[in-house]
Amino acid sequence: MFTITSKTSDSLARACLLETAHGTVETPAFVGVATRATIKGVEPAALSDIGLQILIANTYHLHLRPGEETIAALGGLHRFSGWSGPTMTDSGGFQVFSLGAGKEQGVGKVASIFPDEEPGPGKRSSGGSLVRLSEVGADFRSIVDGSARMFTPESVIQVERKIGADIILPLDECTSPLHDEAYTKRAMERTHRWARRGLEAFRLLEGDPSFPNASQALYGIVQGGAYKGLRETSARTIGSMPFPGFAIGGSLGRSKEDMLRVLDWTVPLLPDDRPRHLLGIGEIEDIFAGVRRGLDTFDCAAPTRLARNGTVFVHGEPRHRLNLRNARFKRDDDPIDADCDCPTCQAHSRAYLRHLCQTGEVSFYRLATVHNLRFFVRMMAEIRSAIVEDRLDALATDWGL
Amino acid sequence: MFTITSKTSDSLARACLLETAHGTVETPAFVGVATRATIKGVEPAALSDIGLQILIANTYHLHLRPGEETIAALGGLHRFSGWSGPTMTDSGGFQVFSLGAGKEQGVGKVASIFPDEEPGPGKRSSGGSLVRLSEVGADFRSIVDGSARMFTPESVIQVERKIGADIILPLDECTSPLHDEAYTKRAMERTHRWARRGLEAFRLLEGDPSFPNASQALYGIVQGGAYKGLRETSARTIGSMPFPGFAIGGSLGRSKEDMLRVLDWTVPLLPDDRPRHLLGIGEIEDIFAGVRRGLDTFDCAAPTRLARNGTVFVHGEPRHRLNLRNARFKRDDDPIDADCDCPTCQAHSRAYLRHLCQTGEVSFYRLATVHNLRFFVRMMAEIRSAIVEDRLDALATDWGL
Repeated sequence: MFTITSKTSDSLARACLLETAHGTVETPAFVGVATRATIKGVEPAALSDIGLQILIANTYHLHLRPGEETIAALGGLHRFSGWSGPTMTDSGGFQVFSLGAGKEQGVGKVASIFPDEEPGPGKRSSGGSLVRLSEVGADFRSIVDGSARMFTPESVIQVERKIGADIILPLDECTSPLHDEAYTKRAMERTHRWARRGLEAFRLLEGDPSFPNASQALYGIVQGGAYKGLRETSARTIGSMPFPGFAIGGSLGRSKEDMLRVLDWTVPLLPDDRPRHLLGIGEIEDIFAGVRRGLDTFDCAAPTRLARNGTVFVHGEPRHRLNLRNARFKRDDDPIDADCDCPTCQAHSRAYLRHLCQTGEVSFYRLATVHNLRFFVRMMAEIRSAIVEDRLDALATDWGL
Repeated sequence: MFTITSKTSDSLARACLLETAHGTVETPAFVGVATRATIKGVEPAALSDIGLQILIANTYHLHLRPGEETIAALGGLHRFSGWSGPTMTDSGGFQVFSLGAGKEQGVGKVASIFPDEEPGPGKRSSGGSLVRLSEVGADFRSIVDGSARMFTPESVIQVERKIGADIILPLDECTSPLHDEAYTKRAMERTHRWARRGLEAFRLLEGDPSFPNASQALYGIVQGGAYKGLRETSARTIGSMPFPGFAIGGSLGRSKEDMLRVLDWTVPLLPDDRPRHLLGIGEIEDIFAGVRRGLDTFDCAAPTRLARNGTVFVHGEPRHRLNLRNARFKRDDDPIDADCDCPTCQAHSRAYLRHLCQTGEVSFYRLATVHNLRFFVRMMAEIRSAIVEDRLDALATDWGL
């Protein structure tokens, strides 16, 4: 069930209730990134304490370790991880393409796809390639042990049903900003065919009591790169399929402006009555921009990754960030943020946190991550209130946006 | 204040109350090792929750980073770390000798001392030496930035007064099992002279309101290696000085048997009315053996270090340990220990913990460390009850000892 409770008068922003088998998410919401069924450095119990509503785990990583069979044998992702709230899993498509070949060959997302018969621009065939893409699916090698694996649109649904998250995503082909329109179009069309196959596989497995979560929702993924025509086609095509929700995936262009254009082209063509997720995006300004454009949920590793590097969020600082490694915090007895109610700010000074960070103490990860997640939780709650009270513009101004 | 509340009929074991400016420790007690003012991977708030009573931080490491002046400026160790319970700091002597030269030159504790004029057996002068020892004190280079530093018996007391732990230790010279009796005797005699200088420095700084903790207690350290005559001399000499408590330091020989002999020679010669700490020792059997021999507190990094390597404690398993990396735990849905009341055992299965350990997730450190510390806290409470009820032998039998 998805209920729109408030809309704004001057944007597509909306406040909604997204019901899952493991609780209701008040949107707009930030989705914590728990790649291997844990937020890095923070145990699940601490996440509920700070009001985090929903986590996204990674199908690719969990397939490799500990394996979906193990998770299913242990009762599914919720029982396995001890996190009892709502969850998502992505499809693993992005990781197959970017981690598989990209990581091994020292290239990033951009030059990481080595399709068997359809080389995109700037791609070259390589004996060391770890991914071979075909209409059937993606052959790849495990980054853990090098073993041969295959993801198909059908197998990924099976894997995700065994993992048992509340919201799951179908296998898609992620293109990069360097792909030309012709290649991006072919990849998008394949993604559409894979979406239909995913839906059919999901339908065939419905009602099967051997899966840990009987009430999963399969979202569709819109692709099409940064090409207006393709994004519109993809939004209409995926939007017309019987998905109970949608995600915007793939390349969002080369700049923030590109990304906003992609959202402007895409979101209005998706059914208004279903939830919309933005994959892998979550800077503060992106979230405000996405909310205005009608997106409901956002997952992003930045707040947790930045925390581990010593960057913590404070409303009003430049870019709303402080780097605790800075020498000026050496004797700073204040908490990270005097207005923050997180356990870290209740107990510890910037000086102590800087000390832990500078000396490489692992306890720093948790303390900084808890703060950053609480910051995003509170920001999303502020955004939600502003939508309900139809004053989102004023809130954005307050945030310097 | 130190109060003996119970004694046993058949050993030197005793249950006591050790009062400090930051609370009373019920002994026998395990002292958590918080080298850089944090237990590795666990924030202070979680430690009180599991009943840990007292922490020991490291003067050498805190002197280098963030520096005692910084800690003093922030109100001392307790305010700095957010840990409000009792604390100790060691003298830094062990680290100066073992980390300084030992670490840089790839040798362990044994061949790590390079005294200027008094080479012990097996020692050689080295241009790369990071420590020069003299009657004045120890010149050494920082392992952080290579800068030249000096610890004297007086400067260490000043450093520890600025850090502000409740129990502090004077600079001593740690010998190794490879040192011969003649060298060990000279080092012991120097340690005794340094102890007097430490006491005098401590007295001169008493009542100085510029230090964060007005109520510190300076313990004396007994040295003398594994040589009976030297240990007896050291226990008598240090025991006759006006220290409010004592620690057994230095080399305890090459085997468990050697260690027990050292304790048998030493402890009976120390004043009965003052607390006794065993430095850096804390295997389960060592604690039972130490308690029987009249020791009150024990610090040891093993439970926390083992946790990070995947080894968790469970009463009744071989050596009371499980290695969670073992494949047999892959689908084990039980908690580490069904009888354990720690937050980890309340929330998570062995299978999930094994997954976090195998994938290198930092959240594992905290979950495993919290369990191991809780295990030691509960074991010490059992030992204390057994002393009060004069059935320590029965308890030891129950523990397979």
